[in-house]
Amino acid sequence: MANEWATFGADLHLELRGPRLRAGLMDALREAVRSGRLEAGTRLPSSRSLAADLGMARNTVADAYAELVAEGWLTARQGSGTRVARRADPRPAAWPALAASPVPALPRPARPAHDLKAGTPDLASFPRAEWLKAYRRALMTAPNEAFGYGDARGRPELRAVLAEYLARARGVYARPERIVICAGFVHGLMLIGEVLRNRGVRDVAVESYGLGLHAGLLTGAGLGTPALPFDERGTRVEALSEPAEGGSLATAGAVLMTPAHQFPLGGALPPDRRAAAVDWARASGGFVLEDDYDGEFRYDRQPVGALQGLDPERVVYLGTASKSLAPGLRIGWMVLPESLVGEVVAAKGAAEWATGTPDQLAFAEFLGSGAYDRHVRAMRLRYRRRRDQLVAAVAAHSPETRVSGIAAGLHAVLALPPGTEQAVLRAAAWNGLAVQGVNQFRRPTVPATLDGLVVGYATPPDSAWQGALRTLCRVLP
Amino acid sequence: MANEWATFGADLHLELRGPRLRAGLMDALREAVRSGRLEAGTRLPSSRSLAADLGMARNTVADAYAELVAEGWLTARQGSGTRVARRADPRPAAWPALAASPVPALPRPARPAHDLKAGTPDLASFPRAEWLKAYRRALMTAPNEAFGYGDARGRPELRAVLAEYLARARGVYARPERIVICAGFVHGLMLIGEVLRNRGVRDVAVESYGLGLHAGLLTGAGLGTPALPFDERGTRVEALSEPAEGGSLATAGAVLMTPAHQFPLGGALPPDRRAAAVDWARASGGFVLEDDYDGEFRYDRQPVGALQGLDPERVVYLGTASKSLAPGLRIGWMVLPESLVGEVVAAKGAAEWATGTPDQLAFAEFLGSGAYDRHVRAMRLRYRRRRDQLVAAVAAHSPETRVSGIAAGLHAVLALPPGTEQAVLRAAAWNGLAVQGVNQFRRPTVPATLDGLVVGYATPPDSAWQGALRTLCRVLP
Repeated sequence: MANEWATFGADLHLELRGPRLRAGLMDALREAVRSGRLEAGTRLPSSRSLAADLGMARNTVADAYAELVAEGWLTARQGSGTRVARRADPRPAAWPALAASPVPALPRPARPAHDLKAGTPDLASFPRAEWLKAYRRALMTAPNEAFGYGDARGRPELRAVLAEYLARARGVYARPERIVICAGFVHGLMLIGEVLRNRGVRDVAVESYGLGLHAGLLTGAGLGTPALPFDERGTRVEALSEPAEGGSLATAGAVLMTPAHQFPLGGALPPDRRAAAVDWARASGGFVLEDDYDGEFRYDRQPVGALQGLDPERVVYLGTASKSLAPGLRIGWMVLPESLVGEVVAAKGAAEWATGTPDQLAFAEFLGSGAYDRHVRAMRLRYRRRRDQLVAAVAAHSPETRVSGIAAGLHAVLALPPGTEQAVLRAAAWNGLAVQGVNQFRRPTVPATLDGLVVGYATPPDSAWQGALRTLCRVLP
Repeated sequence: MANEWATFGADLHLELRGPRLRAGLMDALREAVRSGRLEAGTRLPSSRSLAADLGMARNTVADAYAELVAEGWLTARQGSGTRVARRADPRPAAWPALAASPVPALPRPARPAHDLKAGTPDLASFPRAEWLKAYRRALMTAPNEAFGYGDARGRPELRAVLAEYLARARGVYARPERIVICAGFVHGLMLIGEVLRNRGVRDVAVESYGLGLHAGLLTGAGLGTPALPFDERGTRVEALSEPAEGGSLATAGAVLMTPAHQFPLGGALPPDRRAAAVDWARASGGFVLEDDYDGEFRYDRQPVGALQGLDPERVVYLGTASKSLAPGLRIGWMVLPESLVGEVVAAKGAAEWATGTPDQLAFAEFLGSGAYDRHVRAMRLRYRRRRDQLVAAVAAHSPETRVSGIAAGLHAVLALPPGTEQAVLRAAAWNGLAVQGVNQFRRPTVPATLDGLVVGYATPPDSAWQGALRTLCRVLP
């Protein structure tokens, strides 16, 4: 137990340079205790003798001792000197000294040579200069209170300009007092899931194909996720109202859908089924959760307006800047039925705990100045060109493969000959191409009847696009 | 049912100007259906006749009809013309037309004339220009991937610079791989609460006085929140290890504390109790949740280092930029025991769904460039001056009132003569002064033994500070 403290100063391996002598001494003492080199109960040399030992001012050492007593590392009692404080057993493992061992690099996922996984826009096209301009204007004109704890619904400036934009661009019946800002779609879905569960809803129907992540969030909220059947016209919404379907579909209290552009299959929900979804919600008192993730991107015609407009009291509209701008911004929005506003806001919290105010104000500025429209238009042209190139390349290289789904969004589905999906995915992996098959999005209870690739043509930067496309063509049948 | 469609065009009240004729026509038709003015089944005039009626090109009307069919508002069948789609009963309430009724102003909380409520820094001092500089540099140098879906732990750049800062400024044993970024303290506490609950922890002990909000978040996660007793030296941590205390304290799996500066009472936890907290955690396998909300602000001496350094495997360190910079940024951080990292990251999600990347990179830049240290130093001087003025004014105007707690943080406690708190609070409200009493922070099970005011001297901007202080002195006994 008794360290030979005559050699104590040298043991500390102190770098006796620089302006932070006292802090350096404290760090060294902490490390010595932490590593077990200085045992509990060990008496430390007096500040005078350690100071002499280290060539420091005595006050520096006395101050360091006092700090470490205040922090609980050392104890100082009249007559007993300064000692290392006793710790309860079990002794902790020895921690590596912070300064001694280099910080290990954080593991990064390996990057594929070519990336055509769906779900991410072209990140190289993020409008940095325009965004910065909006951010600067927002930051410099924000009232002081904007930097405080804000309203859980989100900034009023953003909700006002979003209401105008969504009505104009997506046919949404949107009023600022019905809008709640969230940190992207995932956050919004978590809040809605919690609210539905608290209302006693047990099941939320989902489409046959979709992101397992989204179904998982609902499951995590304690909800069942029965899958709606589908046919060649898309999701069979009517099944919600058919008692013969039975099971948990018949008791579903909500349905999560991508009506403008089914993810991943790529169809638009036909008008009669849009109507059927709203009719089911009205008749049953349920809700349609409309995931409008890429509704702004339509290439063959004007975008079809949101389902929400058909019945704002039964449709929860969920939008996001993740596809139109960038996922890294973490900005999304919900337009809610009046009956849900209070519960969703309560689920979000007593204040704005999610999305930073400067970002919200910057996005309001970006939308209000027209920069968002300009960016969406520019990206529409760019993605459309890519989709055209994809369609042409597939037609030229693989006549057996059909591009299915509407000309929209950031991804296309290549319908493959039956039974070939797995072989194509293996060939893709072999060629360093990251791409997913439709069956990776199939709900567990849905039988496998389709073969296809989900191609995210927006994902690569311009410089990598042609190479990715060539590789894709090489692996098609 | 049969609208007289000869007057149909005029009924739409269309503003036939501007470039958005088709969109205007669509909006008008949607509103007419929504409001019930056009009933289900009503046959619309042919596009040719409506076009003539409105003086529009026929194609504009035909396009608008086609859009509305695609959206599910209208149906078009060969031989039957275009009709308003049938909707299930019950009919929805009529929605006010978006354009017709002005959007009601969102309700804003009434502002008190003087605000000395604790919890908010001086928002007028937010370093806008410096922050913008950091944001610009971060945005312009960020790799493209930074705009995508990020690692749930937060940006590596930020975690690296935070580790360095926390070790240097707060004595935290911090390594980047142990840090998880969160959207402020609340988000961090929610994640920890979820993880503890999933581990089977039933109770998290809290201090006798604290934010009801924080205890509420733990309760919301399904955890009990037994209160630790306190005495004149602060929170009686030893009670955790005293079987006689019994009840849920004896089975607590964690304890939430503010060791550097008890909120709201304002004391620093004495060294022996710091050690006792860590010893309890070691012996019981529990965790100390260290809420280091304002540890950087100490005016009478160097800040006491974080408790976490005493045992990084048993203390969860929670820090935030909400007091040092601004709550509106929504940036916080956790330094976790190795055993908790995986579970906390899993609770946070499969990707960074909370805090935007540009903000994280901007904060990394702000920290790394030294701007954060400069800001904290400047605010330390400013808050210290305010605290000195508060102490002097109280001594001059109300000798019965004692300023208790250490010279630190953004608030002070004015200890009032027994039984006077309610009267002082009433007088404050009467004078337009928002301020809270210590009993508003008392846990429900803790007997009322203290009278005092919690004065947030950081809250008002410089221009309002003297007025607030004068008003405060007027209402003191």
